[in-house]
Amino acid sequence: TRLGEDWIFLVLLGITMALVSWTMDYASAKSLQGSGIPELKTILRGVVLKEYLTLKAFIAKVIGLTAALGSGMPVGKEGPFVHIASICAAVLSRFMSFFSGVYQNPYCYTDILTVGCAVGVGCCFGTPLGGVLFSIEVTSTYFAVRNYWRGYFAATFSAFIFRVLSVFNKDAVTITALFRTNFRMDFPFDLQELPAFAIIGIFCGFLGAFFVYLNRQVVLFMRRPNAMTRFLTKHRLLFPAVVTLIIATLTFPPGFGQFMAGELMPRECINSLFDNFTWTKISGSPPPVGLGRSAAWLHPNVSVFVILVLFFLMKFWMSAVATTMPIPSGAFMPVFILGAAFGRLVGEIMATLFPHGIVFDGILYRIIPGGYAVIGAAALTGAVTHTVSTAVICFELTGQISHILPMMVAVILANMVAQGLQPSLYDSIIQVKK
Amino acid sequence: TRLGEDWIFLVLLGITMALVSWTMDYASAKSLQGSGIPELKTILRGVVLKEYLTLKAFIAKVIGLTAALGSGMPVGKEGPFVHIASICAAVLSRFMSFFSGVYQNPYCYTDILTVGCAVGVGCCFGTPLGGVLFSIEVTSTYFAVRNYWRGYFAATFSAFIFRVLSVFNKDAVTITALFRTNFRMDFPFDLQELPAFAIIGIFCGFLGAFFVYLNRQVVLFMRRPNAMTRFLTKHRLLFPAVVTLIIATLTFPPGFGQFMAGELMPRECINSLFDNFTWTKISGSPPPVGLGRSAAWLHPNVSVFVILVLFFLMKFWMSAVATTMPIPSGAFMPVFILGAAFGRLVGEIMATLFPHGIVFDGILYRIIPGGYAVIGAAALTGAVTHTVSTAVICFELTGQISHILPMMVAVILANMVAQGLQPSLYDSIIQVKK
Repeated sequence: TRLGEDWIFLVLLGITMALVSWTMDYASAKSLQGSGIPELKTILRGVVLKEYLTLKAFIAKVIGLTAALGSGMPVGKEGPFVHIASICAAVLSRFMSFFSGVYQNPYCYTDILTVGCAVGVGCCFGTPLGGVLFSIEVTSTYFAVRNYWRGYFAATFSAFIFRVLSVFNKDAVTITALFRTNFRMDFPFDLQELPAFAIIGIFCGFLGAFFVYLNRQVVLFMRRPNAMTRFLTKHRLLFPAVVTLIIATLTFPPGFGQFMAGELMPRECINSLFDNFTWTKISGSPPPVGLGRSAAWLHPNVSVFVILVLFFLMKFWMSAVATTMPIPSGAFMPVFILGAAFGRLVGEIMATLFPHGIVFDGILYRIIPGGYAVIGAAALTGAVTHTVSTAVICFELTGQISHILPMMVAVILANMVAQGLQPSLYDSIIQVKK
Repeated sequence: TRLGEDWIFLVLLGITMALVSWTMDYASAKSLQGSGIPELKTILRGVVLKEYLTLKAFIAKVIGLTAALGSGMPVGKEGPFVHIASICAAVLSRFMSFFSGVYQNPYCYTDILTVGCAVGVGCCFGTPLGGVLFSIEVTSTYFAVRNYWRGYFAATFSAFIFRVLSVFNKDAVTITALFRTNFRMDFPFDLQELPAFAIIGIFCGFLGAFFVYLNRQVVLFMRRPNAMTRFLTKHRLLFPAVVTLIIATLTFPPGFGQFMAGELMPRECINSLFDNFTWTKISGSPPPVGLGRSAAWLHPNVSVFVILVLFFLMKFWMSAVATTMPIPSGAFMPVFILGAAFGRLVGEIMATLFPHGIVFDGILYRIIPGGYAVIGAAALTGAVTHTVSTAVICFELTGQISHILPMMVAVILANMVAQGLQPSLYDSIIQVKK
């Protein structure tokens, strides 16, 4: 079933869903909005947030997240999943404390929450290792190696079950990566391409810092007391409804959406950005075999570059605004898509600059723009969250490790730039909420 | 140039090298024997080991390690590399302290040594990520996330330079993994193979614990005061010389070595164990194209199973004994090879049990014994060192991440068994040296 065949239905559905999700949240507790990672970081530092890790919050968050994801907004599930997993961990430990005194130990509680975070990230994408490392980087300053082991254990089994379920569900034939890529392995990239990878890293650093800045400015603007924000505070349902309406209208596929691959779902979007084609070289009909959903990026009258740039610019502010809405929403996935689009753009530019590929040892190797997209995704998410383990998440998501070294270099460069300019997205949210 | 064309030359060379290396060590400091990881763990816990991190120790260790590796003994370079990198870090920080007061801070010293460990492991195999995680798991109980970032940074650049140098050296066409595998990616394994992977994990747990036990018994035996050990203590050169002589004679390719793939260097050994063939199905001549050095495992009159079992048994005691010799020697690589051989054995047995492969959805997928070898290598090294990051090292070494979930399950199972039975190899050495 394709998204957006009928735009009235789409917009109405989106608004309904956003409202359901927002209402659910508001009904149970205000603190359930947003990602959940900043709150968990605060809890792990010793601040007590009341009613944040209860069964009631769990139910509200699950329904709210489902509705928010269903609304088609550019929001992710990683952050809320961390919250949900932590609630599970906290509730389980409270339940276990009837049987064993170990679970009443306050240290144990912290350990359990840390592991909960790891499981949340790990099972969200089926990336156990990246999940553990990401949760450690995001939530801790010092941590115990025993929690690394526990997180590794728990996240492996959760990812395992997640992927086995998808096999039973006939989504996949066997346990494979979520966004499996298929780049050539014998010569994944040439050393001469390294400067391009470094440029992706540095630019992603600036873009990531700007994303955090934009996100904070939107929140601060909505807080400033003036006629409009007073009106919006009075009619709380309006803000998400208006945002949803605008975004849904703009991405409406037969309208403006056709110039920004609006018909693609987030998952299709990533899969097509990571594909093995060089879009600038596809011309005429029929399209090559196996192009599949990537065809959405090709417009008969508009250049691929224009579409990629439009997609990036529009999705950039949409993601920054959507993640400020009072609904359960993670920023990881939208930023990941943005990074992939940016990387792809650089890759396509490189493929145009070197139309015949790069010569090495007398053999001509063509540029793989998909590889650039993977590197861009890792670098931008790394810059926004101030972590380096996004590279690990990328390997696990794509199932290919051939770009490991350039990707790590790009992530490090992105982090160096972003950390110098802005706090991480999570720290920014903590500062604003104080 | 093939190793072991002339066995007299080989044995003489081996003895000479072992003697050189041993003498070098003895001349500079007794503490330079062995791996280096246990000593570093002790230092990071706050014990001061005098003259352990000096330039003199650096020179002695480098020459000693080169000689030890050249002797053809089953010893690795990972442990000594950690020591060498830590010396570099310590000496560099002492040098930098002339310019900046930050480096005189004792906390900074610990940080620098932690990063030194990470770089040592990372650049040894070109596995930055696994190197960081391995060094954290092995040396720390609690650690700062900032050291994770620093280690990641330093290890990435060292691995990068290491791999770029091999490109300039024309060893590789571009930056690739050290032991690159080429398994099929569309269907790496079937869910029905999971019990076999779990069995590898559990058995590797027992084998790893037994390896640690055997290694300690050899050390304790050599310490017990009796006529033989008194004699050996008097003539210190004798012990390594005798061990080298026995091992070199046994692995001598045209002799007994032909039944245990004696002609393969450690690197060729790993590459052939990870190859894409099913050895039990290769019969008659000529051998298939691309078999290469794997031919050493095929004997015209002896079954592959016998050769694999013999190889495993012989190398098992050889590695346990060789790593007790007073020369710079790591145990990681020998254990890695042992694990790969064990995994391959299970894989070949599976391929014999299911000669036509496993049916899924009407398509017949054959068993890949090389995948079992990778899992075995990760599980056994994990069991011996009590770490789970060996799985990460394996991904980076092979450049393929398709077996991630079964590998992580196997490593966890191996750790559960091994941690219940014996301390880790490094803790065992610390206990014995006390």
